[in-house]
Amino acid sequence: MREVYVIGAGITSFTRLDYPLTEIACYSAMMAMKDCAKDCGVNKIDHVYVANMGASRLNRQTGLASAVVDSLSLTPAGADAIENGPASGASAIKQGFLAVASGMNDVVMVIGAERMREVNNLDATDFVATLSHPLAEYIYGVTLPSLAGMFTRLYMEKYGVTERHLAMVAVKNHANALLNPFAHLRQPISIEGILDSPEAMTNNPYVAEPLRFFDCCPVSDGGACVILASAEVAKKSKKPLVRLAGVGQATDTHAVHERTNPTDLTAVKLSSKNAFQMAGVKPADVSVAELHDAFTILEIVESEEVGFFEKGAGHLALERGETKIGGRLPINTSGGLKGKGHPVGATGVGQAHEIVLQLRGEAGKRQVKDARVGFTCNFGGFGNNVVSLVFIRE
Amino acid sequence: MREVYVIGAGITSFTRLDYPLTEIACYSAMMAMKDCAKDCGVNKIDHVYVANMGASRLNRQTGLASAVVDSLSLTPAGADAIENGPASGASAIKQGFLAVASGMNDVVMVIGAERMREVNNLDATDFVATLSHPLAEYIYGVTLPSLAGMFTRLYMEKYGVTERHLAMVAVKNHANALLNPFAHLRQPISIEGILDSPEAMTNNPYVAEPLRFFDCCPVSDGGACVILASAEVAKKSKKPLVRLAGVGQATDTHAVHERTNPTDLTAVKLSSKNAFQMAGVKPADVSVAELHDAFTILEIVESEEVGFFEKGAGHLALERGETKIGGRLPINTSGGLKGKGHPVGATGVGQAHEIVLQLRGEAGKRQVKDARVGFTCNFGGFGNNVVSLVFIRE
Repeated sequence: MREVYVIGAGITSFTRLDYPLTEIACYSAMMAMKDCAKDCGVNKIDHVYVANMGASRLNRQTGLASAVVDSLSLTPAGADAIENGPASGASAIKQGFLAVASGMNDVVMVIGAERMREVNNLDATDFVATLSHPLAEYIYGVTLPSLAGMFTRLYMEKYGVTERHLAMVAVKNHANALLNPFAHLRQPISIEGILDSPEAMTNNPYVAEPLRFFDCCPVSDGGACVILASAEVAKKSKKPLVRLAGVGQATDTHAVHERTNPTDLTAVKLSSKNAFQMAGVKPADVSVAELHDAFTILEIVESEEVGFFEKGAGHLALERGETKIGGRLPINTSGGLKGKGHPVGATGVGQAHEIVLQLRGEAGKRQVKDARVGFTCNFGGFGNNVVSLVFIRE
Repeated sequence: MREVYVIGAGITSFTRLDYPLTEIACYSAMMAMKDCAKDCGVNKIDHVYVANMGASRLNRQTGLASAVVDSLSLTPAGADAIENGPASGASAIKQGFLAVASGMNDVVMVIGAERMREVNNLDATDFVATLSHPLAEYIYGVTLPSLAGMFTRLYMEKYGVTERHLAMVAVKNHANALLNPFAHLRQPISIEGILDSPEAMTNNPYVAEPLRFFDCCPVSDGGACVILASAEVAKKSKKPLVRLAGVGQATDTHAVHERTNPTDLTAVKLSSKNAFQMAGVKPADVSVAELHDAFTILEIVESEEVGFFEKGAGHLALERGETKIGGRLPINTSGGLKGKGHPVGATGVGQAHEIVLQLRGEAGKRQVKDARVGFTCNFGGFGNNVVSLVFIRE
């Protein structure tokens, strides 16, 4: 396989965006082209992948990739849309990787885009629930918050995680989001305000007990883009070279109740193992990571399953501040899904965008010093289809 | 790039299917596994791609690939859904090609599946129209039959195609469908019955003038599957070896009215040129082809754009019987979209299934003698995103 590099990265604000879905996708793409054009002399995109989950139902639009490639005046480049629920973004990056690695294409654009907020929150929750098992979960009224709530309760009983640990994730990621101009929730919060104060139950009510309002990511619109290229193209860049060195994907039972151990996220474990193996690095080598904290509990559990901490010890590392900016292994410096936002199809590409900035030393106030190895975990379904990526600054 | 072979092919009937979408996909996959298991000793699928267009809106299901990989007990294999409108199937085959060609995977399953008929025909037509330009076409009420109708009128005026030529495509493809046990419309029709008889206007009314009822493909449910593998795996097969030798994709303006010449299907031309070039064969080498006859006019025009006949001469070759089974270059031996049916996301994979049978000599009564090079053209949007594939029997 040929080596694959990220030569450009762009993003829109993750927030409520009053633009059509195609425009959101194109704006992020233009930011990525601006990011790389001067450096690499790239004047041709061979293929475009667009990650999206909701266009057909939420935006009454299909063939999104065709609309995007035309709006960007990139025809006749081929274009396809990729859907893997909330992991659509990293799945699309994987397709881009294969296109370059195989030698089929030299420069591939991977966009993630979602426009969710034209439906109300109830419809958005129902829409996201369609990724659960159609016959064993969805028809019985399962939603993602309800699955996450049950999962959290089990995790608390088994490993001693408390609501305070969950709140620590939220507080950390909101603090990181304040340092990210593209983040959705730019609102400082404190343990006092969301848990200990008399107003906490009003400010931060239960959504799906034990998960509260501030344990759940917002519903966002947004787009993100990375441009992947062969070594020959990438090596013309004046920016630090970032290589997409590891790509791993794994699935688990579609229905959560069918898992041997419902507190294990086996697909997270396997996908990251595969990605690290391909990249030839270990979890201990990682300088900065973006994990899929759609619910605060997930950041803790993923930090264990990917091998950063022992099983059941993620909340203790969090407690010790190891995952803060300045800690041993900063997690979700962008603010994560919790603070930066979660435009579903865009999320995985947004994670890659943050890692590219970090590895290049362009992350401003949230920069992790000397970041060399970056990791992303993009979590589809309720852990039934997970894509992990490893990036290395050369 | 590594060479890529088709080691298994399976299909469901294309008709109204009273099974959930996941089951439709899985049934075709099991047929494909049955087709190859004994021959190749394959006992592991590395990755699954699922082509689908309508699950989110029509079936209230997202993350379809995760559901399929679990139902087939293929976890932890990675799985992604691919959407490129009616060309989703061939787009997914292309992804599978890249996964094997790159060396990432050795055995990849590519499924196409659609379940459309739980919505009524009006909703189905509206749904398919969402692949048109959202701001320049869809909001003004454009549908696919209306675009095809305008296109047909122009083509008639410019190149002398008549309603009789269109009817010849329908009659030929219905006749072929009668020889295909998996075809949707197993109904013999004649020029007399649909055009010349006093009852013709009742039997075959205008849908979007000059296109009549029998010029339009049916709305079908169905699934199809091909299993792709590396040479090392494929060469264990006892069946004739079919190589996926050429893959081409091209886009055109999303809105039809923006094209320099609205009777040209540039993306068909470019995608097939790319596919032939990669395969190292010429259009004249093709023994059998499946073209995307969602409307009868499209078979004629595509047969010109891909290089089988001169521009404007496709209807003359049809008239001379060259595209019949037994003719110089049989087109749509399966019945095509017109006779076999058009379960949108499954169509491109269904085309590949037919070519594999033909190249192996397993097409029964519709077998093309000594077929060695097969070609498929899968047409997304109204020609805005086209994928062409070339298959060679070794």
